[in-house]
Amino acid sequence: MTDRSKVIPSRDFRWQGIDVRRYKEQDGDGTSTEPAGFLGVIRQTLLGQEHEELGLELRYFEVEAAGYSSLEKHRHPHTVVIVRGDGHVILGQEIQPVAAFDCVYVAPWTMHQFRAGRDEPLGFLCVVDRDRDRPQPATAEERRAIEESEEFRRVFGGGS
Amino acid sequence: MTDRSKVIPSRDFRWQGIDVRRYKEQDGDGTSTEPAGFLGVIRQTLLGQEHEELGLELRYFEVEAAGYSSLEKHRHPHTVVIVRGDGHVILGQEIQPVAAFDCVYVAPWTMHQFRAGRDEPLGFLCVVDRDRDRPQPATAEERRAIEESEEFRRVFGGGS
Repeated sequence: MTDRSKVIPSRDFRWQGIDVRRYKEQDGDGTSTEPAGFLGVIRQTLLGQEHEELGLELRYFEVEAAGYSSLEKHRHPHTVVIVRGDGHVILGQEIQPVAAFDCVYVAPWTMHQFRAGRDEPLGFLCVVDRDRDRPQPATAEERRAIEESEEFRRVFGGGS
Repeated sequence: MTDRSKVIPSRDFRWQGIDVRRYKEQDGDGTSTEPAGFLGVIRQTLLGQEHEELGLELRYFEVEAAGYSSLEKHRHPHTVVIVRGDGHVILGQEIQPVAAFDCVYVAPWTMHQFRAGRDEPLGFLCVVDRDRDRPQPATAEERRAIEESEEFRRVFGGGS
């Protein structure tokens, strides 16, 4: 393909030649995991790692039905488009329903978490800066403040 | 919403509060168009223009059935995911079929064009750097070299 331009064909939300990794597993490592609380999340890094001129990475995350990503925050923003299923996103004090093709902007330092609905996986594309800070998992206190909020109980009916 | 984080709800590939613009119309201008050849393309800028910390823009383009985007090249790369319909992408000398959720990387200076299939719109997300060079439309000679190629005739059966 000219100048390293390329098409990465997909089928059922898996991309040709792209490894399916566990959520917090390091690319090219395969051993490192983090202690942050999450359930049933896989990741595919579609673009970026091999394209230095790009300045960003495009990843696909899939949260299994009733699963959730890590509750965390960081300086780098997230640009997200839901492409499969539905669920909710926690953004700081707020909880919003999301479904395919809603767009989500996670601003710097917003505590956030993606939670799949009960019936099908929640899949989303997520663009981040190539060079970025490490996520900071919610402290026990931060997690409790969210999970014991009226908003959380109203939407999810209890703790995770 | 906390720290300007937000959800932009979607319905039928239109996003709440986001203007639907003609392809080459300037945001906030509404009058400027370019002479490049294209047919039946609209654009929605979902994220980026109001988020200086983001460094990128996320746009959605939709090419109507049998339409095509401008045949052009530029220094900035394109990170693309097809989300609706099918069609072809021209990448330099090659023509590749694309369908929802294929991923396309357009490397710097690759001449490229997105062409929808005959039956339904081709919709795709496209991430670009916030600061980027202007596209350079194909010259008549460059266009002819592609449209008279065996590859082009094999796929499309003639000129555009």
